[in-house]
Amino acid sequence: MKMIMTLFTSLVVMATTAVSADQLIGFDEKASSEQRQLEAFFDRNIKATEQAEWLKQFSKAPHHAGSRAGKEVARSIAELFSSWGYDTQIEEYEILLPTPLTRHLEMVSPTMFTASLREDSLVDDPSTSVREGLLPPYNAFSTDGNVEGELVFINYGRPEDHELLERYGIDLKGKIAIAKYGKSWRGIKPKLAAEKGAIGTIIYSDPADDGYGQGDVYPAGPFKHETGVQRGSVMDMPTYPGDVLTPGTGATKKAKRLKIKNAPTITRIPVLPISYKDALPLLSAMSGSTVPAEWVGGLPITYHLGPGPARVRLEVRFNWDTVTAYNVIARMEGARYPDEWVVRGNHHDGWNHGAADPLSGLVALLAEAKSVAELARSGSPPARSIVYAAWDAEEPGLIGSTEWAEHHAKVLKKHAVAYLNTDGNSRGFVRIGGSHTLERFFDQVISDVEDPQTGVSLKDRLKAWLSVFGTEQQKKNNADRKNIRLYPLGSGSDYTPFLQHLGIASANLGFSGEGSGGSYHTLYDTYEHYTTWRDPDLVYGVTLSQVAGHATLRLANARVLPFDFVNLVDNIALYVDELEELAVKMRTDTARINKLIDEDVYVVALDPSKAFGPPLRKTDVPYFNFAPLKNSLEQLAKSADSLDGLLENDEGISDRKLTQLNRLLYMSERQLTRDNGLTGRPWYKHHIYAPGFYTGYGVKTIPGVREAIEIREFDEVSEQIEIAASVLDSLTAQLELVVTLLTD
Amino acid sequence: MKMIMTLFTSLVVMATTAVSADQLIGFDEKASSEQRQLEAFFDRNIKATEQAEWLKQFSKAPHHAGSRAGKEVARSIAELFSSWGYDTQIEEYEILLPTPLTRHLEMVSPTMFTASLREDSLVDDPSTSVREGLLPPYNAFSTDGNVEGELVFINYGRPEDHELLERYGIDLKGKIAIAKYGKSWRGIKPKLAAEKGAIGTIIYSDPADDGYGQGDVYPAGPFKHETGVQRGSVMDMPTYPGDVLTPGTGATKKAKRLKIKNAPTITRIPVLPISYKDALPLLSAMSGSTVPAEWVGGLPITYHLGPGPARVRLEVRFNWDTVTAYNVIARMEGARYPDEWVVRGNHHDGWNHGAADPLSGLVALLAEAKSVAELARSGSPPARSIVYAAWDAEEPGLIGSTEWAEHHAKVLKKHAVAYLNTDGNSRGFVRIGGSHTLERFFDQVISDVEDPQTGVSLKDRLKAWLSVFGTEQQKKNNADRKNIRLYPLGSGSDYTPFLQHLGIASANLGFSGEGSGGSYHTLYDTYEHYTTWRDPDLVYGVTLSQVAGHATLRLANARVLPFDFVNLVDNIALYVDELEELAVKMRTDTARINKLIDEDVYVVALDPSKAFGPPLRKTDVPYFNFAPLKNSLEQLAKSADSLDGLLENDEGISDRKLTQLNRLLYMSERQLTRDNGLTGRPWYKHHIYAPGFYTGYGVKTIPGVREAIEIREFDEVSEQIEIAASVLDSLTAQLELVVTLLTD
Repeated sequence: MKMIMTLFTSLVVMATTAVSADQLIGFDEKASSEQRQLEAFFDRNIKATEQAEWLKQFSKAPHHAGSRAGKEVARSIAELFSSWGYDTQIEEYEILLPTPLTRHLEMVSPTMFTASLREDSLVDDPSTSVREGLLPPYNAFSTDGNVEGELVFINYGRPEDHELLERYGIDLKGKIAIAKYGKSWRGIKPKLAAEKGAIGTIIYSDPADDGYGQGDVYPAGPFKHETGVQRGSVMDMPTYPGDVLTPGTGATKKAKRLKIKNAPTITRIPVLPISYKDALPLLSAMSGSTVPAEWVGGLPITYHLGPGPARVRLEVRFNWDTVTAYNVIARMEGARYPDEWVVRGNHHDGWNHGAADPLSGLVALLAEAKSVAELARSGSPPARSIVYAAWDAEEPGLIGSTEWAEHHAKVLKKHAVAYLNTDGNSRGFVRIGGSHTLERFFDQVISDVEDPQTGVSLKDRLKAWLSVFGTEQQKKNNADRKNIRLYPLGSGSDYTPFLQHLGIASANLGFSGEGSGGSYHTLYDTYEHYTTWRDPDLVYGVTLSQVAGHATLRLANARVLPFDFVNLVDNIALYVDELEELAVKMRTDTARINKLIDEDVYVVALDPSKAFGPPLRKTDVPYFNFAPLKNSLEQLAKSADSLDGLLENDEGISDRKLTQLNRLLYMSERQLTRDNGLTGRPWYKHHIYAPGFYTGYGVKTIPGVREAIEIREFDEVSEQIEIAASVLDSLTAQLELVVTLLTD
Repeated sequence: MKMIMTLFTSLVVMATTAVSADQLIGFDEKASSEQRQLEAFFDRNIKATEQAEWLKQFSKAPHHAGSRAGKEVARSIAELFSSWGYDTQIEEYEILLPTPLTRHLEMVSPTMFTASLREDSLVDDPSTSVREGLLPPYNAFSTDGNVEGELVFINYGRPEDHELLERYGIDLKGKIAIAKYGKSWRGIKPKLAAEKGAIGTIIYSDPADDGYGQGDVYPAGPFKHETGVQRGSVMDMPTYPGDVLTPGTGATKKAKRLKIKNAPTITRIPVLPISYKDALPLLSAMSGSTVPAEWVGGLPITYHLGPGPARVRLEVRFNWDTVTAYNVIARMEGARYPDEWVVRGNHHDGWNHGAADPLSGLVALLAEAKSVAELARSGSPPARSIVYAAWDAEEPGLIGSTEWAEHHAKVLKKHAVAYLNTDGNSRGFVRIGGSHTLERFFDQVISDVEDPQTGVSLKDRLKAWLSVFGTEQQKKNNADRKNIRLYPLGSGSDYTPFLQHLGIASANLGFSGEGSGGSYHTLYDTYEHYTTWRDPDLVYGVTLSQVAGHATLRLANARVLPFDFVNLVDNIALYVDELEELAVKMRTDTARINKLIDEDVYVVALDPSKAFGPPLRKTDVPYFNFAPLKNSLEQLAKSADSLDGLLENDEGISDRKLTQLNRLLYMSERQLTRDNGLTGRPWYKHHIYAPGFYTGYGVKTIPGVREAIEIREFDEVSEQIEIAASVLDSLTAQLELVVTLLTD
C-alpha cells in the first residue's frame, strides 16, 4: 500500500499538473477549461450501481438476435434512450440467421462415443439454469451436412499448420478436421480445411489455451468449464460481413437478395464446436504420427495427427430462417453543427446471457448516453450531433451494424465524423485500436482519465503495462514516443463497416488484461461470472463510460476536429518498414530453405524411420520496388507537417472557414479507401486497414501489398504498391486543400 | 529413396575422395594409409549380434553398484577382457552407498492419499517382472528424514524459479517443495530448496516433459509410463563427485574417511522422486496462486503454487552401508610408447536393468576392445598403451571412476594422453563433447565414419542436423567453420574426474536424437525397450564402436599426438565473447529493471488483486576489465599459430624429439588446471570447463569468471579474470616449450 501511495504522489501530481496545463486538441484555452468542467459534470453522473442493474436485467436470459428476449432487450434500451430525451428509433433489417435443428457428433470407430454437445448448468450460478431460448453450441453460417470420415488433427488450422501436415504426408481429402480454437479466427479453420479437401470441421477449446491450463475453471475460477463450448460465427467475414444475402446493401424488406446456395460467405463444409470434455474421447482414439511439440495441448493424452482410426459422423442441419434484427438508434441533435455526426455504438445481442459480451460494454455506453443527456438538459448540449447505436446481430457476423451502415452509406459518408465502438469490458488496461489520425486525440483522452485501481492516469498505467509486459516489438514501437500508438483495426466488432467499408475514422475501446476467463460465447457468460471474475462492482464499467464519454464529447464539441496526420504518417512509415522487412525475411528464409532442400540436407537430417519429410520448395522471392509507396508517403509527410503547423494556432481560424475545414478533416479517412476495394473482396475498401484474408480478425496493414507478399502472389506486388501509393496521394491532395484553405 | 540416392552420389563421393586425399592428423601419408587399412580391419570385426547378446545378458537383471548382479556383471566383463588378451584387473573401492529402508509419502490433508512409489510390471515387457534385487525409486544421497509440511510447487527448482516464487511472496521455510524433473540437474533442486528453508523435496516427472506429452507411453511407445520414476543421485556433485567420505582420495580400504554427518555432498533435507501418477493427487489438492504460464505442466489440472493446503508427510530412511565398487581395468601394453596411455571407459552399473544406461555404450566399448585385441593378435598392436575401463557406481555419483582417478592421480597425470568416455547410446546423430584441443581430431574421425541410415559421413549428417534443427546460436557458432565444434563438458558421466580433476584431455561420445524415450533410470530401461525404441538391431551400437574405436586407435598410433590449439583458442575466444555479452546483458537488464522498480512502474503495471509483486532491486552491474584475459588469449593465439605451422610438417620431426614433443602436447591440458581449484570447490581444478554450481550437469566455461558474474559476486570478477588469464599463460608457456623444441 505504501508503494502505491508513493506512486500516487509522484505520478498523479504530475498528471494533474499536466492536465490543467494542457490545452485540449481542437479547443482553445477557454473552451478547454469549459470542456473539462463539463467532463467533471459528466463523470459525476456515471454510476456503477446503475450499470450493474442494467447488466443484471439484460443478462437475465439468453437474448440472441432473432430471439424474443433479444427483441425485448432492444425495446428496453430504446425506452431508456427515449426517456433520456434522445430521438430514438428501432431500425429493422430482415436478415438470414441459421439456428440449429440437428447437431450430432458420434464416433463410429474404433469405439463408439456420442458427444453430449451440452453445457452443464451449475448450482453455483443460477443464471446457467435459465435455459429458455438458449442457443445450443453451434457455429453460425456453417452449411448443412451429414458427413462421415476419419479425423485429422489440424492444430489451429492456420496456413502454417497445413504446411506442416503436408510434410507429414497427410491429405485432408475426405477427412474430418479437428481443430483447436485460437490463434486464428474461427471462420478461417473450416475455410482452409475445405480448401484442402476436408468434408467437415470440428473445433474445440483445448484446456491448455482455454480451460484448466489457464487457471481454475468455473465456478471455482473464471476459466472454461469442461463442458463449455465457444459458439460463434464462421461466416467468411474477411470476404464481407453482414447479412450473407445482401452484400453491400442494407437488408431492408425490399432489398434484392442472393439465393442461399449462392451466398459466398457460408462455409462449404459443416462445422461444429465442441467442449474439451467431448473432444477427449475423439482425440484419445486417434493414432498416426505424434503431433509436433508445439501442437501439444493440455489433455492428458498423447496427441496424434491421424488420419483416424477415429472415424466420426458429423451431422448439422439448420433452420435457414429470416429474422428481424433490431438496431436501436438514438440521436441527439448537435446545437451548433448538427450535420456533423459522432457515431458511438455497442451491440446488444449475446450468444447467450451475454453479460461480458456485449452487455458490459453496452451498459457503459448507456451510462454515458444518460450522462450526455443530463448535460444537454443542464444546458450543455453537444455542438455536433451524437448518434448512439445498440446493434443487433453482431455475433452472427456484424450484421446489424453492417446492414445499417450499408443502408445509410450515403448520408454516413457525408456526415459521419467518426465512429467509436465498444464491445464488452473487464478489469485491466485501456486498449484502443483505431485510425491513427485519432492517435494524438486518444492519447490526450487517456491522459485525463484516472485508473480506478492505481490512481494514475490510464495512459501511465498502459505505459507501465507496456514497459513490463509488452512484447519486444511493442516496446520498440512505443519507445521514445510521446503518444501511445493505437493498434490498427482488423475486424471482430462493429467498427468494420464504418472504417473498412465507408472510410469513417473509427476506434475500438475497452479494458482488458486483468479480468480473465473462459466464458466467451458460452453458457457461462453470466452476471455472476462477470461480477465475480471480470469486473466486480463494475469499477471499470465506470471508467469505460468516462473514457468513451470524454472522447465522444470532445469529438462533439471541439471547434476544430482533432484529426492529426503526423502520427498517421509515422505509423504508415512503420508499416512500410514492416513490409520491407517481411520481404527481406521471406527472401532470406526461402533462399535458405530452398538451398537446404536442393542440397538434400533435409533428407539427411530427418529421421528416416518417421513419416516427416522436407518442406516443399517455394518460389524465390524477388526484390520489390517500394519506392512509389515511400515517395507518396514522403509527400504525405510534408503536407501533414505543414498542416500540423497551421493547426497549432487554430484559434486564428475564422468561423467562416470552420465548416469547410472540419469537413475536409473528417473526410480525410475516406481518401484512404477506393471504390473497387481490395483484390478479391471488393466490400473492403480501406487500403490501410483490413482483416486478414487467411487470418481473420487479425489486422493486415496496407493489406493489398502485405497479402500479395504473404500469399506469394509476387506478380501483383508492384500493382498493389501503386494502389497503396495512390490512396496516400489522395490523402495528400486532401491535406493540401486544407492547407490552401487555411493559408488563403 | 530417390533423393537419398542423389545425396549418396553427391556427398559420399565427395567424402570418399576427401578421405583418400586426407592425411590423418599426426600420421604421415604412408602411416595414414596403413591406419585406414587397420581401421577397415577393425570395422569388419564389429558385430551387432554380439553387442545384442551382451546387452541381453547384462541387462537380464537389475545390477546396481553393491548388488550381487552388479558384481557378476563386472566379473563377466573382466572375463571377456581377459579372454581377448587384456591384462585385466578388478580394482575395488569401499564406498558409502545408501540404499532405501523406508520410503513413505502420504498426504495428510485436505484429503488422505498414500503414494504407491512403485513401478508397474508390464505384460508386454517380461524384463519388468524381473524384480529381484530391484532398487525401488529413490534419490541416492538424500539424507534421512521424516518431515511433514505444506507443499509448495517450485517448477524446476532453478534459481530463477525461486526468484519468481519470492515475487509471489512465498516463503519455503518449513515447507516441502515439489519440483519437476528437468531443466536443471536433479541434485540442484533439493540443494537450492534447502537453502531457501524447505524441509523436504519431492521430485516428479511431469508428463509434458517426460510422459504422454512427448509421445506414446511405454509399452505403446517409448515414453514414460505413468508409474515410471526417475531414480538418480542428488549428491552435491558440483562440489565434488565420487565417494562422499573420501574427497580427493581413492576410497581404498585404508583411506581416511569423513564421518557421514560431516560429508558436505549429502543433501541437507530428505528427497524422494515420484511418478506423475503419484504426483497428480498431490498437485490437485494444492491451491494458492495459479502458477505462471511457463510453469504449467501436462497434468489435467490447474497447477497452483501453494503453500498447501495439501500437507504431506515424507519419510525416507537409508541403509548407510559401505559396499565394494568393482572397476574392471583392462590394459593392452603399447608396442612403441607403452608409457603413454589412452584411457577409454564406460560404466557398467545401472539403476536397474540398465539396457540403455549404461549397457548400450558398454557393449559398444566391449566390441571395440575385442576388435582392438584382434588387431593386436593379427600383428598390429597399438603403439601406445590402451586402458579399457568398465566403471562401477557411476550412477550414485561417478564413484568408481572418481575413486580410481583419485587413487591413481599421480600416474595418470604423468601417463594419460586422453580419456574417451561413452555412457549409453541410441539412434541418431553423433554428439561429441570434449577438450577443444581434440576438436580437429574428432572432426576428422567423424568425417571417416559412415552414418548407417543415410550413407553419408557422420559429420555430414551432424552438419545437416545443425542446419535444420540447430538453435540459432548453434548455427551461428558453426557457420563458415571448417570443423564442427565439440560441445564443452560439464558433468554427468565419468569424464569428470579425468578432465576436471586431473586435467586430462577428455571427450564424451554418443548418438542421440532419434531414439527417444522415457526409460531413463526407471524399471523400463530394459532390453525390450532398447531394442524396440532406441536402436533396433544395434545399428548405432556398431557405429559407436567404429567412431570411438577409430578415435582410440588413432590416438594410440599417431606418431605426433593430434592435439591442436588453434581451435582451442577460437573456442575460448567465443567463451570470452559470451562473458562480455553476459555482462552487458546483465548490466542492461539490471538497469532497466531497477529503473522500472524505482519509478514504481511495476506497482502500476501489476494486478493489485493478485499476490504477484515487483522483482527485488539488484545491485547494478559494474564494468569489468576483461583485458587481462584477452591479452593472454592473444598470446596463446600467437603461440598456437606458430605451433600449428611447425606441426604441419611433422614428418620432419626427429624420433629423438618425439617423446618429449608428445609429452609436452598431452600435458598441455594440465596447464588449464590449478592446484587450488575453483573458489568454494577445490576439487574442480580445470579453469575452462566445470559443471555449474547452481545448474549441475550444465557446463560453465571459464567457470571462475562466469559464475562470479552470474551469482553477482562482482567484487571477485577481476581476480577470477586474472586467474583465467594465468592458466592461459601457463598453456602459452607450454606451447612455447614445444615451439622451442621444434625449432631448436
